[in-house]
Formats: sequence, C-alpha cells, structure tokens
Amino acid sequence: MSEVIYKRVALIGLGLIASSMFWAMKRGGLVGEVTGFARSAETRETARRIGLCDRVCDSAVDAVQDADLVVLCVPVGAMGAVAAEIAPHLKPGATVSDVGSVKKHVIEAVAPHLPDGVHFVPAHPLAGTEHSGPEAGFAELYDNRWCILVPVEGTEPKATARLRSLWEGMGANVDEMDADHHDLVLAVTSHAPHLIAYTMVGVADDLRRVTDSEVIKYSAAGFRDFTRIAASDPTMWRDVFLTNKDATLEILGRFTEELFALQRAIRTGDGDHLHAYFTRTRAIRRGIIEAGQDTDAPNFGRES
Amino acid sequence: MSEVIYKRVALIGLGLIASSMFWAMKRGGLVGEVTGFARSAETRETARRIGLCDRVCDSAVDAVQDADLVVLCVPVGAMGAVAAEIAPHLKPGATVSDVGSVKKHVIEAVAPHLPDGVHFVPAHPLAGTEHSGPEAGFAELYDNRWCILVPVEGTEPKATARLRSLWEGMGANVDEMDADHHDLVLAVTSHAPHLIAYTMVGVADDLRRVTDSEVIKYSAAGFRDFTRIAASDPTMWRDVFLTNKDATLEILGRFTEELFALQRAIRTGDGDHLHAYFTRTRAIRRGIIEAGQDTDAPNFGRES
Repeated sequence: MSEVIYKRVALIGLGLIASSMFWAMKRGGLVGEVTGFARSAETRETARRIGLCDRVCDSAVDAVQDADLVVLCVPVGAMGAVAAEIAPHLKPGATVSDVGSVKKHVIEAVAPHLPDGVHFVPAHPLAGTEHSGPEAGFAELYDNRWCILVPVEGTEPKATARLRSLWEGMGANVDEMDADHHDLVLAVTSHAPHLIAYTMVGVADDLRRVTDSEVIKYSAAGFRDFTRIAASDPTMWRDVFLTNKDATLEILGRFTEELFALQRAIRTGDGDHLHAYFTRTRAIRRGIIEAGQDTDAPNFGRES
Repeated sequence: MSEVIYKRVALIGLGLIASSMFWAMKRGGLVGEVTGFARSAETRETARRIGLCDRVCDSAVDAVQDADLVVLCVPVGAMGAVAAEIAPHLKPGATVSDVGSVKKHVIEAVAPHLPDGVHFVPAHPLAGTEHSGPEAGFAELYDNRWCILVPVEGTEPKATARLRSLWEGMGANVDEMDADHHDLVLAVTSHAPHLIAYTMVGVADDLRRVTDSEVIKYSAAGFRDFTRIAASDPTMWRDVFLTNKDATLEILGRFTEELFALQRAIRTGDGDHLHAYFTRTRAIRRGIIEAGQDTDAPNFGRES
C-alpha cells in the first residue's frame, strides 16, 4: 500500500466486528491512527490490554475528534443515540459508516442527526462468528466475504468509493444495493435462519428436562449445527429482529407455510413429495460451495 | 488387538456409514473377512475399485453366507425387504444389526423375519456427514461419537456386549436405550432439525427467483449452515420422516408453537422476551462443546 485510505479512523463499539476491522486495517496498512471507544469500562480495559486500537478513548466524543472515518459498531438499536451524541463533534468532510445487520432502520435512526458536509455510507459486512467481544476479532474475518454498501440518497460517489477501497483492502468483496432490498435479502439469508435456530435450540432445551442431558450428548446427529448460530450475541440479535420486523416476519410466514406442507406430506406418507423436495435443496449447497462461500469438507472440516 | 471380535462380517448397503465402518474395523484390526453387497451395480463397481470390503458380492444372500455379523446399512424403508431376503441364509448364532436412524420401525420390519437362534441387536451410530456413497466413508467418522444400541426383548446380553466391543473398537462411545426413547431423542436432536433445515433452504430457493443468486452469494450470514444438513441423502431422510412420523410431528408441533411465540414477540416489540430467550440458548452451545461434541473454533473452524 503506497498511501493510507483514511488518516484517522474511529471505531465506536469494540466487539467482534470492530476488532476484526482493526486487525484487518492494520494487516493491510490501510489507515493511520485508529481510535476506539466502548461503553463498558471493562471492554475498554480489555482493548487496551490486547492492543486493540492505537488509542482507546473514554468517550465517543473524544474518539471521533479529527476522524476521517467514523464506524458505528454498536447494536442496531443503539445507533441513533450514538449518532446524536457524536454528531456535533464530527470533522467537516468526514465519513460516517456502520456495520449494522439492518439498514433501513439504521439510516432512519442515524441520518437525521448528521450535519451537512458529513458523508453517510452505511455498510454491512456479511461475516461473523458465534463468538463476541473485543477478543473474538481476527484479521482474516472478512477475507472473501461480502460487504454490502448502502449509500443514501445524495451521498457523494467519492465517499462511497473510498469506503469501498477500505473494505476491499480488508479482504472483502463489495456490493451496493438499496436499503429495502438489503433488508429482504438478509431476512432470507440471515435473520430468519437465526430465529429458526434459536427456536429449535429453545425447544430442545425445554425437552432437556425430559431427556436429561441427552440432547447435548447426542447433538452430533444434526442439532449441534443449529446451536452455533443460536449462540450469537443476544443483544445484537434482539435489535435485528425488532428493527427488521416486516421482512423477517414475511420470510417466517413463508417458512411456516412450507413447513406445514412438509408436515402434511409426512402425516399422509407422501414420500415422493419429500424426496423431490430434499433433492432440490441439495443443489443449493453445491451452488454455495462453487461460489466459494463454504467448504466442501465433510462437517465443515471440523477437527472433531 | 489380540483377537478379532467377529471372524466374518457382512455389510449390506455400501454408503457412507458402511464404508466408514469398513475402514474403522480394518483400522482397529477388529474383524476377519468383510463381505459387502450393494443393490446398485455401479456402487459395487466403485467398492471393488477403491478396495471397500475384502469381497464384494453380487447378491445379499452370497454376502451373508457364514457371516457372524450382518449389518443392514440400507435406508430405513428398505430394511424389511432385505431382512426377508437374507433370513433363510443366516448362520445359526449369527448377529444381525443395522445402522438405521429410526429404531421402532426397523425392529417391527426386521424382527419378524429372523429365525430363532439369530440375535438381533439394532444399532444407530450418531455420526455422518452431508456426503453420501461408498467413497464418502473414512475410518475416523465414529471417533468420539455416540452409538446407541437398542437390544430387543430376549436378546442375549452376550450378543449385545460383543457388538458393543465392535463399536467401541471403531472409536465410538456406546449407550443402550429402548426404541421409543431413542426415536423421541433423535426426533429432537436430528429429525426435526433436518426437516427445518430442508424447509428453510426450500424457502430460500423459492426466493432465489426474486433475489437472483443473492441467496447463495450472501449465504455466509448464517444460511450456509442450514444448507449443509439440507444436503444430506434424500432417500435416507424421506424414510426417516415416514417411519418416525409421530415423534417428528410431535417435536415439529412444539417448534411451531415456540416459533409463533417468538414471532409475536417480534411483532409486538417485546425485546426482553427475545433477549432472555437468546441468552438461554447460548448456554446450550457451551454444554455441547464441554461434552466434546463440537469444536469451539469460530465458524466450526472452517478453512474459508
């Protein structure tokens, strides 16, 4: 890298996503100084201990001073309040972005606070793990993953292009789309699957009383895959569902319809229907592997 | 190993489970000659090419000649017909077992055909991958996984103990339980999760027409985990649902109830309910990792 993309970057919120951004930006030599802020004193302490951010500040206002890029990495439900707090302290010409899993709500919550002359380029990196917190981050998280930019009306193309360079420098592929489309696509690929996984794990937990510890013991029969996504951060996911309500409920409605059709096929013994359905779904997996979005190794290449 | 556990073993059906058994038995030096049979000539050809089984036979009847242990490794719906075919040719004192994911139905389908003096010890190894066929097997599949034995009334304890030794020699931990309990536990840990995964992948496939290839492109946001289990063998799973109908429908009923409660919490904006639910499910994951049934590495330790 000959020149840095942003001289000063502020990360507001220091969880998995922000900390992975920090390590990825440093790996690529993409930025100058990175400041960071987290609401919890414990998180700030941890960040200082592990060298996360060049400077950890004790307030969001301090962190955004002179920043060329401010990235909001807090739960979706907290974005509006943070934006209101930092807005008067933003440098003219700065770019504000975020990493929220929902875009329409974030835009509605954040945009009204931002002063003229500040660019707003919402973003959503489609990457993560079931772990959370500052120590969960790692530089490779975004390699070959997608990051979706959702520029709002009137955003300068230059500001969007600059943020795109940053994400590409962190290893991601970048796409652009509008907020409504983003929220629908994510409801299918992420929000509904997460709610379904949470539900199945909850059902199994109820039955644990009946079956003792057997649900855990015998989880390798399929159930354990569900528990990984159902171990994701509760606050983040609460906010996702509350703020992408319509699209999520729409997909869940379709899901329930299909589930009922399959349940009826089971009840009536319609083996042909089941077989045809299961054959169709197999092809999707193939597409994902060919698109480089998952491994073909059996059981995800688990070590155990 | 000082002495082999069975001098001659016949594997009927040569898919992932049987081939993994073959390699695991050979790894441990647990058995003498292993014969094999598959209904499809192509599968038999593949087995001969890759050295799967000491001898691949062109009929099930040939394969079971003089066998001390016969393991039925065919889809659950095919067990009864195979049992009827081989029954007159079983050696007195032989043990018949199976690897079906459903136990009550298999017992009802197989037991009536078996002659006196033949032991029947149904079994179910809780292991597998999304791949199928003779080439998908590997010796380590059963290491540290559970195998459940479901001895039928009147089975000689010695026959059960001997089969237990074999599974332990293949790396598995062995438990015993009755068929009804097995089928309920598996409905929770395996059958319902598989149907739910199939359903979610089917919904996404429908929406693919709306969203172009975006469902595949952005699958890393959570959805891709579902596609792995929804890529499992369609014939095997059709049979599982048709033969473990009651327990599966019972669990799916509970699942739908919970899903509706969560949908309502989303609709009414009840964040506390969602947060409490998601916090509870997180603990289950911890239990599974502590029980050695999954890896704690982020994203299952995927390479990509």
